[in-house]
Amino acid sequence: MKHFTSTKDIADLAALVASAREMKANPFAYEHLGKNKTMVLLFFNPSLRTRLSTEKAANTLGMKVISMNADSGWVIEFEEGAVMNAGSAEHIKEAAPVISQYGDIIGVRTFPTLKDRERDYQEQVIEAFKRYATVPVVSLESATRHPLQSLADVITIEEFKQKERPKVVLSWAPHVRALPQAVPNSFVEWMNIANVDLVVTHPEGYELADAYMGGAKLEYNQEKAFEGADFIYGKNWSSYREYGQILNQDPNWRITQHKLDHWTNQAKFMHCLPVRRNVVVDDAVLDGPNSIVIAQANNRTWAAMAVLREILVELNG
Amino acid sequence: MKHFTSTKDIADLAALVASAREMKANPFAYEHLGKNKTMVLLFFNPSLRTRLSTEKAANTLGMKVISMNADSGWVIEFEEGAVMNAGSAEHIKEAAPVISQYGDIIGVRTFPTLKDRERDYQEQVIEAFKRYATVPVVSLESATRHPLQSLADVITIEEFKQKERPKVVLSWAPHVRALPQAVPNSFVEWMNIANVDLVVTHPEGYELADAYMGGAKLEYNQEKAFEGADFIYGKNWSSYREYGQILNQDPNWRITQHKLDHWTNQAKFMHCLPVRRNVVVDDAVLDGPNSIVIAQANNRTWAAMAVLREILVELNG
Amino acid sequence: MKHFTSTKDIADLAALVASAREMKANPFAYEHLGKNKTMVLLFFNPSLRTRLSTEKAANTLGMKVISMNADSGWVIEFEEGAVMNAGSAEHIKEAAPVISQYGDIIGVRTFPTLKDRERDYQEQVIEAFKRYATVPVVSLESATRHPLQSLADVITIEEFKQKERPKVVLSWAPHVRALPQAVPNSFVEWMNIANVDLVVTHPEGYELADAYMGGAKLEYNQEKAFEGADFIYGKNWSSYREYGQILNQDPNWRITQHKLDHWTNQAKFMHCLPVRRNVVVDDAVLDGPNSIVIAQANNRTWAAMAVLREILVELNG
Repeated sequence: MKHFTSTKDIADLAALVASAREMKANPFAYEHLGKNKTMVLLFFNPSLRTRLSTEKAANTLGMKVISMNADSGWVIEFEEGAVMNAGSAEHIKEAAPVISQYGDIIGVRTFPTLKDRERDYQEQVIEAFKRYATVPVVSLESATRHPLQSLADVITIEEFKQKERPKVVLSWAPHVRALPQAVPNSFVEWMNIANVDLVVTHPEGYELADAYMGGAKLEYNQEKAFEGADFIYGKNWSSYREYGQILNQDPNWRITQHKLDHWTNQAKFMHCLPVRRNVVVDDAVLDGPNSIVIAQANNRTWAAMAVLREILVELNG
Repeated sequence: MKHFTSTKDIADLAALVASAREMKANPFAYEHLGKNKTMVLLFFNPSLRTRLSTEKAANTLGMKVISMNADSGWVIEFEEGAVMNAGSAEHIKEAAPVISQYGDIIGVRTFPTLKDRERDYQEQVIEAFKRYATVPVVSLESATRHPLQSLADVITIEEFKQKERPKVVLSWAPHVRALPQAVPNSFVEWMNIANVDLVVTHPEGYELADAYMGGAKLEYNQEKAFEGADFIYGKNWSSYREYGQILNQDPNWRITQHKLDHWTNQAKFMHCLPVRRNVVVDDAVLDGPNSIVIAQANNRTWAAMAVLREILVELNG
Repeated sequence: MKHFTSTKDIADLAALVASAREMKANPFAYEHLGKNKTMVLLFFNPSLRTRLSTEKAANTLGMKVISMNADSGWVIEFEEGAVMNAGSAEHIKEAAPVISQYGDIIGVRTFPTLKDRERDYQEQVIEAFKRYATVPVVSLESATRHPLQSLADVITIEEFKQKERPKVVLSWAPHVRALPQAVPNSFVEWMNIANVDLVVTHPEGYELADAYMGGAKLEYNQEKAFEGADFIYGKNWSSYREYGQILNQDPNWRITQHKLDHWTNQAKFMHCLPVRRNVVVDDAVLDGPNSIVIAQANNRTWAAMAVLREILVELNG
């Protein structure tokens, strides 16, 4: 793959998952691939899991890693023809090709504004990096997608599924802050190309953008959606329609053990973390046998390794 | 050892000191121990010496290191059953096991509040990491202890002592800010198991907690305490009794060359650094032949190496 | 070389440039030089290019790298005899020798105040590090110089020159913020020992300090200065005379394609980056065939490698 920012960048999901699982069983067999190669990670926003798992993956593949917090001071200009007499100090037309000379792969984390929907959904930052970088660009979560998370989710479902084509439900859940749509958008995109039966459920007003929903089934009634589910993916997001708004915080949408026990097929509970306990999901779920969130977080490393391995193989010709 | 957060975690101090001194003489003989292992360092508070020496130690033992400043934004919840609808974004019950999957050893730096004595002295943060992490946890200074510093102090005294059982005096000294009791607490704990004759001296009101003082001798008169001393360890701390308060800044408690010359057995001067010159201790001491603070800081590396070596040997089975 | 902070530290510029170009052609031949060595990078100010290129250079030479942002909290005292009862927490007399024990080479970035000219031009911070460190100190840009940038500039001119002794023009250009004189000072110093015909041009009031200008030619008329130029180095700086002030932002000084086409010998355009587009220089220049700024940034890596290689060879005896 050239870059890694969405499902559009991958050729064969099953092969990518198989590669991840093979390296999970045998992590240190590919250290030669990254020899004499450097990965630069640029964080325009905070990161814990993504940074640790991606650094570890790159190290395990033999790369050197340089992580930079670019969240203060260094304001990049993206507008063509801008007269840069205000806040921005450097244009992406310099920043991206210059960094491409120090790193063989560039990772970029960039959150949405949640204010300007058009700008966010044009993926201004990550697309500009792809356009002007001369090396592969890997999304560490962008305005509208979190593909390394979604690939880890696919791997996790593959590991835990009890039937060939499990039923997977993405459920909105309440939260106190306005969160991006990146994780649910991306999850739906990846589930739409995986071998699962996907249902999305949320209160009215939280509809995801059509381009991400694709043909996914929508069910406004959480109980109906959960019926026979093998996996419940809990996640809050703010509204796409009334962009970036919290429309409600209805606690009836919280994921409870009761719902798992009575509405689902003893579904496994998934969440990308961090998770607000007893707001998004009850302690009883997270501390009980249905939760696979820790195993899911573990797969972040193997998802990153599968992606970086494929990129390195291409770089090495 | 399983974790490293206090003297309680070690089996044999003399062996640990011997290991440190052996590696100081021959630093690069143990690189195989950390092969394919990652150490994650989490700094909830700033760090200079601890970060540099621990990173260097881990690197020298062949580990990869990922250092993260966790001092802004990422607020961890520690309360069981908390409804997380306020500031905290992630519970330790997720954070610790998740990070344990990316790092083979986790280092944690976490300062006290100096406001809530009970919470600080329960060591809420480091104890929660020990409880929920699935890998060894190393204290990079916690609310009430700084064991890597104290081990370096033991090594330093071992190197510089001129008699089998030297007299060591821990002396309070003035400062302009309210500082934790972690260094003095920890120093006393470690001296209490080392082969030294320890005396603690400070103005009334600065008594350390009983659990840390153990059987250590207390002498309120600095001059009497210094009599015949081979080592003077200068350090400010805020009051434990009137918790976190500065009770006085009496300059008569400053460590001077006159005191070393006239009150002690030409004692060596020690301090954990950073030190406020001409507030805690005079220039004449730090710039004179009695000071061993630079050599002491050097031993931070070998203390960290001894601890990590022992942990790695156990991890490697 | 012992330290690297200005042209005074180097013995043979041509040899240094040749070393850089040799490693650019064959980057991975010197990994043994840095084996078991650590470089500590201290950033008292933000850095992008310098940090990435220096980390990459050190890694490529086989060193471990520890980068620290020292821009908040950790205030160093530089005054001899200071009574440290205010903001500064640690004296350089401890900080530098202590860090020297964790790093085999120390890199330091420290910007000028732009308020206190005497203090800035005494290079208080970098000189104190040189004085009290016990290992080599490398400037990552100091108050009055940016020598790794200047060495990269020399390499770039060497690569792109079409005649034995090209005409090089350093031209002031407008900017919205008050910038240091470090880059132009340093550029002039290095050009003065390189095989070029240097002219400096700027509006009245922007004269560089005599100690840096040396015998360089000054021409207040930009058009006359540009006549026959092979390289135009665009850069803003604030006034040295009226220290740190912006005396004017005259857009007539902006570098345009028209000037390159009509006033110069189709000069190559250079800039240290980041650059404010359409303020310092027009899009047409940066996006056109005259610009070599990306290639120039690339040479940051090889400049750092040449310097570190020479230091490592000396350290290895």
